[in-house]
Amino acid sequence: MKFKKVEQQDIAFLKSIIEKDRIFTEEEISEDFSRDELAGMRNMPEVLVEPISTEETSKIMEYAYEQNIPVTPRGQGTGLVGSAVALYGGIMLNMSRMNNILELDEENLTVTVEPGVLLMELSKFVESNDLFYPPDPGEKSATLAGNINTNAGGMRAVKYGVTRDYVRGLELVLPNGEIMEVGGKIVKNSSGYSLKDLIVGSEGTLGIVTKATLRLLPLPKKTISLLVPFHKLETAIETVPKIIKSKNVPTAIEYMVKDTILSAEEYLGKEFPDKTSDAYLLLSFDGNSKEEVEKSYEVVADICLEAGAIDVLISETQERQESIWSARGAFLEAIKSSTTEMDECDVVVPRNRIAEFVKYSNELKDEFDIRIKSFGHAGDGNLHIYVLRDDLAEDVWKDKLDKVFQKMYDRARELKGQVSGEHGIGFAKKNYLEESLSVDAMTIMRGIKKSFDPKGVLNPGKVS
Amino acid sequence: MKFKKVEQQDIAFLKSIIEKDRIFTEEEISEDFSRDELAGMRNMPEVLVEPISTEETSKIMEYAYEQNIPVTPRGQGTGLVGSAVALYGGIMLNMSRMNNILELDEENLTVTVEPGVLLMELSKFVESNDLFYPPDPGEKSATLAGNINTNAGGMRAVKYGVTRDYVRGLELVLPNGEIMEVGGKIVKNSSGYSLKDLIVGSEGTLGIVTKATLRLLPLPKKTISLLVPFHKLETAIETVPKIIKSKNVPTAIEYMVKDTILSAEEYLGKEFPDKTSDAYLLLSFDGNSKEEVEKSYEVVADICLEAGAIDVLISETQERQESIWSARGAFLEAIKSSTTEMDECDVVVPRNRIAEFVKYSNELKDEFDIRIKSFGHAGDGNLHIYVLRDDLAEDVWKDKLDKVFQKMYDRARELKGQVSGEHGIGFAKKNYLEESLSVDAMTIMRGIKKSFDPKGVLNPGKVS
Repeated sequence: MKFKKVEQQDIAFLKSIIEKDRIFTEEEISEDFSRDELAGMRNMPEVLVEPISTEETSKIMEYAYEQNIPVTPRGQGTGLVGSAVALYGGIMLNMSRMNNILELDEENLTVTVEPGVLLMELSKFVESNDLFYPPDPGEKSATLAGNINTNAGGMRAVKYGVTRDYVRGLELVLPNGEIMEVGGKIVKNSSGYSLKDLIVGSEGTLGIVTKATLRLLPLPKKTISLLVPFHKLETAIETVPKIIKSKNVPTAIEYMVKDTILSAEEYLGKEFPDKTSDAYLLLSFDGNSKEEVEKSYEVVADICLEAGAIDVLISETQERQESIWSARGAFLEAIKSSTTEMDECDVVVPRNRIAEFVKYSNELKDEFDIRIKSFGHAGDGNLHIYVLRDDLAEDVWKDKLDKVFQKMYDRARELKGQVSGEHGIGFAKKNYLEESLSVDAMTIMRGIKKSFDPKGVLNPGKVS
Repeated sequence: MKFKKVEQQDIAFLKSIIEKDRIFTEEEISEDFSRDELAGMRNMPEVLVEPISTEETSKIMEYAYEQNIPVTPRGQGTGLVGSAVALYGGIMLNMSRMNNILELDEENLTVTVEPGVLLMELSKFVESNDLFYPPDPGEKSATLAGNINTNAGGMRAVKYGVTRDYVRGLELVLPNGEIMEVGGKIVKNSSGYSLKDLIVGSEGTLGIVTKATLRLLPLPKKTISLLVPFHKLETAIETVPKIIKSKNVPTAIEYMVKDTILSAEEYLGKEFPDKTSDAYLLLSFDGNSKEEVEKSYEVVADICLEAGAIDVLISETQERQESIWSARGAFLEAIKSSTTEMDECDVVVPRNRIAEFVKYSNELKDEFDIRIKSFGHAGDGNLHIYVLRDDLAEDVWKDKLDKVFQKMYDRARELKGQVSGEHGIGFAKKNYLEESLSVDAMTIMRGIKKSFDPKGVLNPGKVS
């Protein structure tokens, strides 16, 4: 791809439409903007701009499109596959300043937000209004636009689905700078191809999200969590399809092992309620009354005990539940802080195949003599598996990582799974995506990209 | 568009791969296959073929693509916008013979079906297994692939969402004949652009659905319906945002007026439980216990009474509920049988704007001196408004219809609504779609079509 480098006249143009203190060049740009959370690839943008409106974003994009300068939109940089890295330099748009919650519409049960609103801010806001935004990824400091662009799933996907299910409408700036609205406050829509659903999960390659209208639910009045210790991880995970089959669908079903819990305790400096066992399922249930929730969890507790659980620890108070779930939310950081470098595999498989996949990844640990840690969404088949570098030399690390990943993605394909459950493709997983899809599917995806972005200037080098 | 006409050699090819008794030409083709339910446009296919497998479908499509012969896939022909009409002749694929329920997977809560399975068969099957497929359009004899291709919504969208929310995976035959799978039994997916969500609602223009894996829920143990009479339709509909705002979300909220009920009684030859009032809301609630359901509907009943409802009639028995809902399901047929010809407007608006839209369509009735009937999904903002020809002369009818529709679609746009809530665009609503979307959106949609179907042979003349 041949792009134009950013020159003095381009900076001058940006300064003519954006206040100077929101434009950064060279050493003014923090190193943070060269990478995302996993930092598997780094590259500095030539200029960093912080728009505060759709109109500014549109003007910048229009100019960049004309001039053939690549543009990379970025939220909080919490991604794990490099979607927000300016691979080809150019202009980076830090959308974080557009962080207003614009409207709560209680008659339509929607909330409209700017792209930079953080997930944790949104949750707090809607819950204070007795409403509920179900998507609940571990990383609460991600932006909503980031969540939309990866179609983030999170813990509650078992019962409530993923981000796509909660996006009603979007305002976008297209690669040519035009502003487009898709969807709206409407509940149904069959008006042509669903561009809204195409934007969700497109990792900032088809348009820049400048506004989002999200669907809300009434806040469940009662939530309860079960921490269920098992002697063995396999026994724990093999219990999951039995729970699903019982038709008592929990809100969330996570799995975890003792040493991840210990890492999280160390990382957070907080005690986890139980760490006597090797493996755990963590479940939550919600509903509108104690009786309703009890009815479900009692059945599930019995299934767990019958399947070999050592105990079932019930957490009813908000405080106690928060202590457990905040530990769960810190697993990624805790594992990361235990090693020098790591990479992750975020495959999703049918939920009755998870046990098989986890077992396989444990075998790889021995086969390749490398540390592999995993935790994840047992209830929805989405695993987060981390391969850790520790003190391996660069070439040994790359070689082992490639081999381990290749085996994992091959196995996921055999199990009728997909490359990414919720973290996306970015550039880090492009090869695995290409391997997992047909030639036709890749050709179609590239055609779609071209339909939105004929010159390929928006977030180039990602996804397809 | 220039397509090749079907010639003897093409028929000979079809006969070489498909049994003769599943190939029909000329007068062997029933007139039914020239049209859909509303029959706004008719055209006969040159040859009608009934494939019984994905492989047969693939071979036919591959041949047609090479030969530049248009192909129109069709289910039960229950559509209302002409998506399944062979506008350019060519080959029609009647997918109705592929009507097997292939697999119920209770560990993943999915069911896999062939495209021609009818909605009513699926409901019956899953419910007999204590499971639930929520999408519930009025037309129960539509095929699942038809529902998928229009992203059908139906009554329960208020609580449960639309067909797209229940499609986990699809097998498709692409325009070039290749077989492609998108999605799977997986719960989450962020692996490139979501082709699955693009196919849903694409009205058979991007690929032919040959298999679908659908998400199921546990069957709610208790359902209750409320029939709520009001003196005036406006009062009834204005109650809906108040219900939504109360955070007690019903499963369904329909509105209806007395003369539609009378038409349905006549059409079905069955008594409706109440027809003393001019307007009604029909609500349903579901849950896992009597207490849970009661708690919700009691709050909502009070809101209705406070808002001016005359009474609240509770239906608890399955028999009584079925008598009400089957009347609701027959409204389209009942209105249709009361006139010579009709056309429908299926706009969707934010749910707090429905009262405004219904009021406006009543004004148009007087302004244009034409019969207009409406009923619809008050809880999700999706209206079904029928303009009736009665004994108007052809030119007067066309003129009035055009003017009335233009005003309705203009108003829907002003209210931030969309052209179609669930019936799709087909060819009947193409102009209105083009008016309602930006030039960029239409260009992108045409680009998407081209990415799937560079020669434009699959269901030409529809959607974009």
